[in-house]
Amino acid sequence: MSQDKYVYFFGGDQTDGSAEMRSLLGGKGANLAEMTGLGIPVPPGFTISTGVGQLYHENSNQYPDGLDEQIDENLRKLEEAMEAKFGDTENPLLVSVRSGAAVSMPGMMDTILNLGLNDDAVKGLTAKSGNERFAYDAYRRFVQMFGNVVLGIEHNAFEHLLEAKKAAKGVTLDTELDANDLAELVSEFKALVKEETGADFPDEPRRQLDMARDAVFESSNNERATIYRRLNNISEELGRTAVNVQAMVFGNMGETSGTGVAFTRDPSTGENSFYGEFLMNAQGEDVVAGIRTPLPIDELRQVMPAAYEQLTAIGDTLEAHYRDMQDVEFTIQDKRLYMLQTRSGKRTGAAAVRTAVEMVNEGLIDKATALTRIPPDDLEQLLHPMIDPSAAVAPIAKGLPASPGAAVGKVVFTADRAEELAADDEKVILVRTETSPEDIGGMHAAEGILTARGGMTSHAAVVARGMGKCCVAGCNDITVNEASKEFQAGDLQLTEGDYITLNGSTGEVIEGSVKLIAPELSGDFATLMEWADEFRKLGVRTNADTPGDSRTAREFGAEGIGLCRTEHMFFEGERIDAVREMILAKDETGRKAALDKLLPYQREDFVGIFEAMDGYPVTIRTLDPPLHEFLPHTDEDVKALADKIGVPAETLHQQREALHEFNPMLGHRGCRLGIVYPEITEMQARAIFEAAVEVTKRGVKAIPEIMIPLVGHVQELALQREVVVDAAKKVFEETATEVEYLVGTMIELPRAALTANEIAQEAEFFSFGTNDLTQTTFGMSRDDAGKFLGDYVDGGILEHDPFQVLDQRGVGQLVQIGTDKGRETRADLKVGICGEHGGEPSSVLFCHDAGLDYVSCSPFRVPVARLAAAQAAIAEKS
Amino acid sequence: MSQDKYVYFFGGDQTDGSAEMRSLLGGKGANLAEMTGLGIPVPPGFTISTGVGQLYHENSNQYPDGLDEQIDENLRKLEEAMEAKFGDTENPLLVSVRSGAAVSMPGMMDTILNLGLNDDAVKGLTAKSGNERFAYDAYRRFVQMFGNVVLGIEHNAFEHLLEAKKAAKGVTLDTELDANDLAELVSEFKALVKEETGADFPDEPRRQLDMARDAVFESSNNERATIYRRLNNISEELGRTAVNVQAMVFGNMGETSGTGVAFTRDPSTGENSFYGEFLMNAQGEDVVAGIRTPLPIDELRQVMPAAYEQLTAIGDTLEAHYRDMQDVEFTIQDKRLYMLQTRSGKRTGAAAVRTAVEMVNEGLIDKATALTRIPPDDLEQLLHPMIDPSAAVAPIAKGLPASPGAAVGKVVFTADRAEELAADDEKVILVRTETSPEDIGGMHAAEGILTARGGMTSHAAVVARGMGKCCVAGCNDITVNEASKEFQAGDLQLTEGDYITLNGSTGEVIEGSVKLIAPELSGDFATLMEWADEFRKLGVRTNADTPGDSRTAREFGAEGIGLCRTEHMFFEGERIDAVREMILAKDETGRKAALDKLLPYQREDFVGIFEAMDGYPVTIRTLDPPLHEFLPHTDEDVKALADKIGVPAETLHQQREALHEFNPMLGHRGCRLGIVYPEITEMQARAIFEAAVEVTKRGVKAIPEIMIPLVGHVQELALQREVVVDAAKKVFEETATEVEYLVGTMIELPRAALTANEIAQEAEFFSFGTNDLTQTTFGMSRDDAGKFLGDYVDGGILEHDPFQVLDQRGVGQLVQIGTDKGRETRADLKVGICGEHGGEPSSVLFCHDAGLDYVSCSPFRVPVARLAAAQAAIAEKS
Repeated sequence: MSQDKYVYFFGGDQTDGSAEMRSLLGGKGANLAEMTGLGIPVPPGFTISTGVGQLYHENSNQYPDGLDEQIDENLRKLEEAMEAKFGDTENPLLVSVRSGAAVSMPGMMDTILNLGLNDDAVKGLTAKSGNERFAYDAYRRFVQMFGNVVLGIEHNAFEHLLEAKKAAKGVTLDTELDANDLAELVSEFKALVKEETGADFPDEPRRQLDMARDAVFESSNNERATIYRRLNNISEELGRTAVNVQAMVFGNMGETSGTGVAFTRDPSTGENSFYGEFLMNAQGEDVVAGIRTPLPIDELRQVMPAAYEQLTAIGDTLEAHYRDMQDVEFTIQDKRLYMLQTRSGKRTGAAAVRTAVEMVNEGLIDKATALTRIPPDDLEQLLHPMIDPSAAVAPIAKGLPASPGAAVGKVVFTADRAEELAADDEKVILVRTETSPEDIGGMHAAEGILTARGGMTSHAAVVARGMGKCCVAGCNDITVNEASKEFQAGDLQLTEGDYITLNGSTGEVIEGSVKLIAPELSGDFATLMEWADEFRKLGVRTNADTPGDSRTAREFGAEGIGLCRTEHMFFEGERIDAVREMILAKDETGRKAALDKLLPYQREDFVGIFEAMDGYPVTIRTLDPPLHEFLPHTDEDVKALADKIGVPAETLHQQREALHEFNPMLGHRGCRLGIVYPEITEMQARAIFEAAVEVTKRGVKAIPEIMIPLVGHVQELALQREVVVDAAKKVFEETATEVEYLVGTMIELPRAALTANEIAQEAEFFSFGTNDLTQTTFGMSRDDAGKFLGDYVDGGILEHDPFQVLDQRGVGQLVQIGTDKGRETRADLKVGICGEHGGEPSSVLFCHDAGLDYVSCSPFRVPVARLAAAQAAIAEKS
Repeated sequence: MSQDKYVYFFGGDQTDGSAEMRSLLGGKGANLAEMTGLGIPVPPGFTISTGVGQLYHENSNQYPDGLDEQIDENLRKLEEAMEAKFGDTENPLLVSVRSGAAVSMPGMMDTILNLGLNDDAVKGLTAKSGNERFAYDAYRRFVQMFGNVVLGIEHNAFEHLLEAKKAAKGVTLDTELDANDLAELVSEFKALVKEETGADFPDEPRRQLDMARDAVFESSNNERATIYRRLNNISEELGRTAVNVQAMVFGNMGETSGTGVAFTRDPSTGENSFYGEFLMNAQGEDVVAGIRTPLPIDELRQVMPAAYEQLTAIGDTLEAHYRDMQDVEFTIQDKRLYMLQTRSGKRTGAAAVRTAVEMVNEGLIDKATALTRIPPDDLEQLLHPMIDPSAAVAPIAKGLPASPGAAVGKVVFTADRAEELAADDEKVILVRTETSPEDIGGMHAAEGILTARGGMTSHAAVVARGMGKCCVAGCNDITVNEASKEFQAGDLQLTEGDYITLNGSTGEVIEGSVKLIAPELSGDFATLMEWADEFRKLGVRTNADTPGDSRTAREFGAEGIGLCRTEHMFFEGERIDAVREMILAKDETGRKAALDKLLPYQREDFVGIFEAMDGYPVTIRTLDPPLHEFLPHTDEDVKALADKIGVPAETLHQQREALHEFNPMLGHRGCRLGIVYPEITEMQARAIFEAAVEVTKRGVKAIPEIMIPLVGHVQELALQREVVVDAAKKVFEETATEVEYLVGTMIELPRAALTANEIAQEAEFFSFGTNDLTQTTFGMSRDDAGKFLGDYVDGGILEHDPFQVLDQRGVGQLVQIGTDKGRETRADLKVGICGEHGGEPSSVLFCHDAGLDYVSCSPFRVPVARLAAAQAAIAEKS
């Protein structure tokens, strides 16, 4: 009678599983099997299959017969492979235990490391490592982790004991505790476990293993995981977890041990050369945490030539297998190389582009793969400014070129301060000894990051590259004093508020504010963009209100303007006076007189934009914001204006009061202005058509698309359309010149989307204004959501900030309804999107799937949108 | 070869058409044919069929052959019937020309009266009426009307000439112009026509007629009518208009002529007795305008017995035919009675109920007809207060009991002032010499209306009855001086701001503020409500926040509470201090302490409500408004609060500032409060369950339904639901008592409706909060919409204020989507509506059709909703 197989060994020359057995072994288990299958030396171990978890839950937490024997058998194999034994006082086997389902889910059990330690094994670890402190530190960490994760004791309870110990010893850092202290802590931790659970801490390694296994299977059935599966439509099968048990290996077992990370290509530039860092007699966390500054991987060739050769060969194998640049972690224990992890390497946008293009040229991947390989967001990095090469620059310090680009800003020393100043539109550089995950917000807010410690793979470097943000890391030339808010660079002392400039591509730190220039785009970038254009079906336009922005966007490949906001034009220079005169006018005659003054300004604006967009359509939105936005806001400004226009301040106050709105977002704005004051729309339409005629006479092709905002009812659009068409007729008659144009509307209210079939009777195009549509669909004011939206995203209520990533289930549903209903009425209706989502990759994908004709986004997002659109087209094909 | 028939005669003993020929004759033509078919003496005339208009448009504005001859022939018949001739200097035939399609549409040509007048005919009219001024006034009105409607000259151009004439004569009123002046005006008007059109005013009556006919047909094809038909899905066929040409008759042809209006039953009480008013030697407008006070119809018996007998007999015929109380207009010209119009008579709510119930008892109609006959809104009138019969009341004046009920308020003399004070929640009585259409707003704002002139069918009386508002009209005892803001009643002088009380059922005017009491509902009312309940399928609940309101609503037939707003409770008495303490608390501990103080109050509130609703469900909404609403608003109040709670005012100001929102409607409110501060929901849930347990122990059946507001994402509801369920569990354990309850949500955001399938996973019921849903779907703040919504409704962009009448195409679509999707997930989902639309009849009909389980409305609207629900069920059957 053949017995069911529950446990799958991997490592050395025996590997039971394979990459295909994902649903049985989980993602992690299948990957380990795959790597060993490729002949990669991973620390050996075994996977308890997802089927065991299923049987366990189905049979009231009973394991199937035979499981214990299979675990015993695999443990024996593991001990043999590692030449070590569970609980041994000379060479103890230690293992890690990890969960791993076919898809990853939150709420699953965390990793347990160093399982197998007890009072005997810790002696063995001491003997092996020659480092008693290390051994007891590992022991106390294990007890703490096991106590928390498996036994459910609060993390804080252990931390209190640790703090108490440090206080008793009069020290402040964990590292100042010696082996004795740590041994005492182990006892205290165990006493805590006894007190909390009523049972002794399990000293027997096999018992530890069983308990960890149980905890994994239990965690896969907890409420959080269950809700997550339900909400994300993850089948029970895919949600089942396996348990991975893997031998621990240590890089700190003396001078023939070490650890490091490496990339198969340079993650900064994409250059095809093996790249990385290592430290001898160290653990992985020493490298990642940036506490010791590691050595370049090249030097490993001198130190341990065999290991180096093996490592680079493995790199080649992995890259050929995964057809992508790999980021590997390795440990050398007693001269034996183990690969702890391989994954596609994080890279800068520049590296992503170069790698992708070169891999196509090397025949490793095809164009479609190259295009899908690059996160569209990363392209924006390439477009960011760099230091003007002609500027005379004298660096005050030099660190590692951790993330390319350049940045100028005021020095700040805490993440909070960075966020604070950034909120006031100040540009800041965050300067830290080293960064930690709590600094993320401040790193995001900063223009650039400078750290005194840590290597190319330190927290600061990795995160900054991810953000496409300039970073100089491990800058040993400086000393940072966060408390006194100053840093020292040689003799120079800089304090909070001083300006510095970073060059993330060279690692230079420069005093003061240096001129930055726009980047030259590489040939690889142009190649990639061409490929993107070959694949994509969505048009890409830009949101631009000025000729300058229009030109920039056109250089980035924009095929027209999807949103030109006219109100920004109202604020400039003298025209604001005319605008205010219009608002304060007592009647239509007064308003018209003021509008007549505005007309030449508006015409001039449009002339510039039409010229910049010669041959491409320009979608111009008529006035949108409520009129009170144009009045002065403070009492002082009111007084100044009153004096200027010779009106009592009281009158202005009254007017401001009269225009006050409780909810301006839902108030008298958009086409509601044009309905009540048609003369405003009339002036704007006239300015547009006069400008179009003027440039046409000069041989420029103007294609105006006039867009009426905030339409909720077809009649609104019908009335405004009439005003526009009349203005066109008049201008064309007056000038004896005709220009093609369209009249359409923004769909930014739920009612507009729901009645799009009616609205399309009057609209030649739709453009989804997903900013406002998100506000109304969610009933959430962007300006006020800060009070709770953070809690919402952090608490998992919303996956993303819906103002950044289009809410496809809700707002997206309206986009789909609006598009479909609009085309029911008018099959050739042109449909686009001009909310900020138009440049966000997942939203672009959605727009492609929804059948939109184009997306429109800010100039710097145009390449992002082009790539995302190509990816959408590729995804659709496959 | 038979010729097509284009023209249909009616009147006397020849009637070509019939009531069934609606699409050929239009609505008006078919009705005229119907009346003559019943033997009713209507002024004779003929209808040019809708087919003619069709041919006219199809054949490039050419009329079919033979039309002219048919018109000539019918004109001859008409002249014979009226013993008059077009353009005659002794007895001229004058006609009216009116459009009339099968369905009525805006933008169609207005009526032309007195067509046929020219310099000859005016002499004839003078001769016949013995009143030269009247004749020339008719002439100048005709030229003006024709010039405006047919020739398209601006109304104002004529008015300017009229004003100039009055100025030249040094008079202010039109009536002060004599025959000569009017004759001069005719010439001036004609000169204007010549100037504007380049052609002479057509003097030939037949030519006048042709031009008027053309104008009718043209108007049916103008843009406004075309758009209206398209938007309302009116087929071209139904949209075609006919032209009705009808002889003019005059009640001011001497002492054997007269005019009047009558009702077949008393429109005030419903009593089955012939009722009306008349004036001898007068025109209809003299009666309607209330310029002369008419005589009761009974007196016609003395003056002209034959005409009276004929009139009452006609009344009986019409009522039997139309099976409804009729409102007729009649004119006696030279002893001959003509019926100008008959229509279902407007009546008070009380009269509607009595008439309907009595007609069922008389066997005239069935119950379903009786129920559909009554506009549900009218029922509310019956529920309004009356003067306490035990109050000692000394009237200072007595007028006509024009609209029943009673009202108390401050005297105001202009509609504007009425609106102004009403906006400040002042109760006012509008006192006018007489009212006009410009006063509508003020009449709406007032509690009651008092006029010195005008009869039971004067503007004031008709409008007030329509509004269900108390009105005393034609109160000759008083003299009103609008300019000096006072009125005289005998020796007594009252000025603006003085209190008076009106008794609209007796016509009494009382000085000061008299106690009012709730009305006794008649037996007929109860009968009707029973019938309604037999038919309706929708449940009817009430929106009530207090035990008192709950009891009132239950008396009116409410079957539970659909919305109990807990925030109103937060404002009362001492508890507002605890609420503020909670808001100002620095942390959760502080908030919990404050909430503990609130708990007993909340529990007590719920105890009272559960008792009042014993056996019926009570839907309680958790806290909804943003917290800043509970803080003091003015600087003074802030200071007072600061002193009271011993906190610096500055701190309070800062707190208020911190809580400030740009768009509070879209801000931190609804479940977003409960998500960030779960302890608030927890307290409220505990209060509800403790109260439910307490009353249960006393034998009261409490059925709480806890409703989470402003949910946009299922996870919000999941989290809040957990808090509620936990609180229930704890309370039930503590008290060893269990109470059935439901947890559900308000659907008041578009996203909630769109993702109702997800939300229904966590909701046992939905209640559509259509107030907020309308705000977000339209992107329109109710508080701010005043700036443009008036323009929108007046300008025809929106048919109704969407906050009063549910917007079925937009918001209604979301209600339907939400209901359908919700039931996909949970077939037995209970679905209701608790926005103010829940008591609005057309919205109730919609809710029935959408498959809702119940509507919820304010207590006084409960009978309205019951009737509307019955009508919906009846409409569905038929």
